[in-house]
Amino acid sequence: MADKPVCLIGGGGFIGSGLRRHLGARRIPAVILSRSPVPDARENEIHVNLAEQSWEDIRTRLRRFEYAAIIDLAYASVPTSSFADPARDVAENLGGVLRHLELCAQLRTEKFVYVSSGGTIYGEGEGRPHKEDDPLFPLSPYGITKLACERYVHLYHHIHRLPAVIVRPSNIYGPGQQPFRGQGIVSTAFGAAFEGRPVTVFGDGSSVRDYLFVDDLCEAIEAIVTQADAGSILNVGSGEGLKVIEILRMIDQLMHERGGTLELAFEPPRPFDVHYNVLDVSRLHAIAPWRPRTALGNGLAQTRDWVEQFLTNRSSP
Amino acid sequence: MADKPVCLIGGGGFIGSGLRRHLGARRIPAVILSRSPVPDARENEIHVNLAEQSWEDIRTRLRRFEYAAIIDLAYASVPTSSFADPARDVAENLGGVLRHLELCAQLRTEKFVYVSSGGTIYGEGEGRPHKEDDPLFPLSPYGITKLACERYVHLYHHIHRLPAVIVRPSNIYGPGQQPFRGQGIVSTAFGAAFEGRPVTVFGDGSSVRDYLFVDDLCEAIEAIVTQADAGSILNVGSGEGLKVIEILRMIDQLMHERGGTLELAFEPPRPFDVHYNVLDVSRLHAIAPWRPRTALGNGLAQTRDWVEQFLTNRSSP
Repeated sequence: MADKPVCLIGGGGFIGSGLRRHLGARRIPAVILSRSPVPDARENEIHVNLAEQSWEDIRTRLRRFEYAAIIDLAYASVPTSSFADPARDVAENLGGVLRHLELCAQLRTEKFVYVSSGGTIYGEGEGRPHKEDDPLFPLSPYGITKLACERYVHLYHHIHRLPAVIVRPSNIYGPGQQPFRGQGIVSTAFGAAFEGRPVTVFGDGSSVRDYLFVDDLCEAIEAIVTQADAGSILNVGSGEGLKVIEILRMIDQLMHERGGTLELAFEPPRPFDVHYNVLDVSRLHAIAPWRPRTALGNGLAQTRDWVEQFLTNRSSP
Repeated sequence: MADKPVCLIGGGGFIGSGLRRHLGARRIPAVILSRSPVPDARENEIHVNLAEQSWEDIRTRLRRFEYAAIIDLAYASVPTSSFADPARDVAENLGGVLRHLELCAQLRTEKFVYVSSGGTIYGEGEGRPHKEDDPLFPLSPYGITKLACERYVHLYHHIHRLPAVIVRPSNIYGPGQQPFRGQGIVSTAFGAAFEGRPVTVFGDGSSVRDYLFVDDLCEAIEAIVTQADAGSILNVGSGEGLKVIEILRMIDQLMHERGGTLELAFEPPRPFDVHYNVLDVSRLHAIAPWRPRTALGNGLAQTRDWVEQFLTNRSSP
């Protein structure tokens, strides 16, 4: 990315925190938009609290810059919570992306990156890695609103020439992913183990997932910002499948080093848990030399240490 | 369809009026749900005004029956109007279908038919008739919410075992389609000709569409209710492409019989008008002996006569 600033919409979440580290390490100016205050402002950052001003004022402020990229990460739900209130999922997430697109169509930017969901948008599939052109039959309201958001982004690309690229990450894990939020079994498993509680496994643990470390996702997004053509859709994942039970065993091993263990509590599978979700990343490989750099054991150990610190900070007065 | 009643959600619109004629002619009991009063109640009909009672009361009332089919036709927008306020399109149409699905999952029915939009859901495509498994890149907010609605229907089929079938009609025309509503060039062209005004053509009229008479759609829906497997998606169209300019010429000819002509006013093409939209109906042909029965000239003449009557009734005191 160049000297121009990068704008993060919804920079206060898990992937946002990873991108902020990434931009900070490269001293790239960053404009962080979020609905709640974002802690630990870095030198390279300007923070804009969406709740504190009108869209009119926000637009005026944002138009002062020309951006290398605007990256939209904002989302108000996770797959499990979207079932409790699909109408709220619709109103908040689709209403949100429509406001962002309307805003961004009026800004100068070289790319608009929409972060979708490779983990939920495909649905069950046929037991082989999902290609970007595969049929999309999501099995959660969350996945359906992500699909609709992708198509609004495509519409703005088609009608308003927004230089939009869609990124579909696999199961992202790593430091910054808070446990017990209904998304991210890795941090939730570490959190449960540190608290001496079992982690719930839906089904027998044979479901296959594609785990990618958050820093590797951030490097992929940087490659996509500079290399991908506007209008493209790209999976980002390891491309390799791992059974849930296998990653939980690795987490258990890593807890032994802290004198702990991971207990499992098996529950019946839920109808929206697909058996197999691995992403085919050949399209990304064809446009950029990006490859994941963080070995799973290393990434899990970093996550363990971050969750330990997070729980310690939370419990201290 | 059997002796069991058929329930129409949103029975007050154009396709609803066609289905009401169809059910009335066969003396099939019909429960008509709509948000505004539906005129001309038939003997076979029970009318339920959605605006006048709570969902709780509506559910209690609807649970008294077991249905041959529930057919969801309700929609609050048309492709052109959806651009003016995409957020309203989202709130009304997705909010609506979620309420209907939640309701219908609690009713006893042999089929749930969701009427989607073969005319808008595919987007531009590759210049050949669209198959149901083609990629879906709608170019209007209307088409995007139709796609999302289809996926919510699929979700309810998958999770709640709702016996859902999705129908994707092509460009439907015929008696009951009011002119000047932003959808349905046939009735709007007749309306304009009767009023001595030109009809607007976006582009040069070379766009290709698949026109189907409303009665043929109703017969296809009846065939689908009895023949299609739950979970299936079916195009319904003539399968044949006609240039917009060709159908306008036919309309002009038919106006000559009334002593009128059709004037054309050409405007630049809009970015959301696809060049080619014809449906491949081989999937429907494989499950039912259905074929369109109304020749275009005959269907257009019936539409002309209906529009003439409609405009006369509207202008009389």
